Amino acid sequence: MKPDFSKGLLPAVIVDDLTGDVLMVAYMNETAYQKTMETGQTWFYSRSRQELWHKGATSGNYQSVQSVFLDCDGDTILVRVNPKGPACHTGKRSCFFYKETGEGKKEEQKENGIEDIFDQVITEIQN
Amino acid sequence: MKPDFSKGLLPAVIVDDLTGDVLMVAYMNETAYQKTMETGQTWFYSRSRQELWHKGATSGNYQSVQSVFLDCDGDTILVRVNPKGPACHTGKRSCFFYKETGEGKKEEQKENGIEDIFDQVITEIQN
Repeated sequence: MKPDFSKGLLPAVIVDDLTGDVLMVAYMNETAYQKTMETGQTWFYSRSRQELWHKGATSGNYQSVQSVFLDCDGDTILVRVNPKGPACHTGKRSCFFYKETGEGKKEEQKENGIEDIFDQVITEIQN
Repeated sequence: MKPDFSKGLLPAVIVDDLTGDVLMVAYMNETAYQKTMETGQTWFYSRSRQELWHKGATSGNYQSVQSVFLDCDGDTILVRVNPKGPACHTGKRSCFFYKETGEGKKEEQKENGIEDIFDQVITEIQN
């Protein structure tokens, strides 16, 4: 089985290989997938800029690929990485920091809470 | 921030709340998202059948929602669940069992390997 790019861009779930946390979801076309496999770093296709995007090329926050999985029907890619810095453009380790409280309100993770300190320690360990 | 359904269907990453494993990725429209929040079980929008899909309605493998997160730009949903059975239609706990070996070959997880035994134990614990 190969990734089925006949369906268009495929979502790639980026997971921290050390912690197992989901860091981000971005999209790959066939070229981005091939470059990811060849270079051992993540490449995506930016839907807003409509161009290939080498994660870390601007920020320095490259993601070193540890392993790659496909789902059962080949239309989602999962990449386990060692991140060289935050995955999120906000500076957070993971893009998934908005918690839905179920009452229409979102509870943003508090800065300098225990989870942020943990994030900082993990980032230190990985660099 | 709310999920931005103006971009169309949004991918939902389903994570096992106990193990942290990514179980599957499916898609939600606004109705599926609302039903997920209201019922505490996962609902998706099936792209192939073009209809709402209550996960587990046919198989019995419902997913009990533990928490919901949005990513930084509100176009990906992450749902942590307690699964009542396998997420995958193949009977595996997770849909991501094809490992890309980097040589063009896929290495399917061996049946009855240690990971399958672990899967079975986890499923027993959760039910």
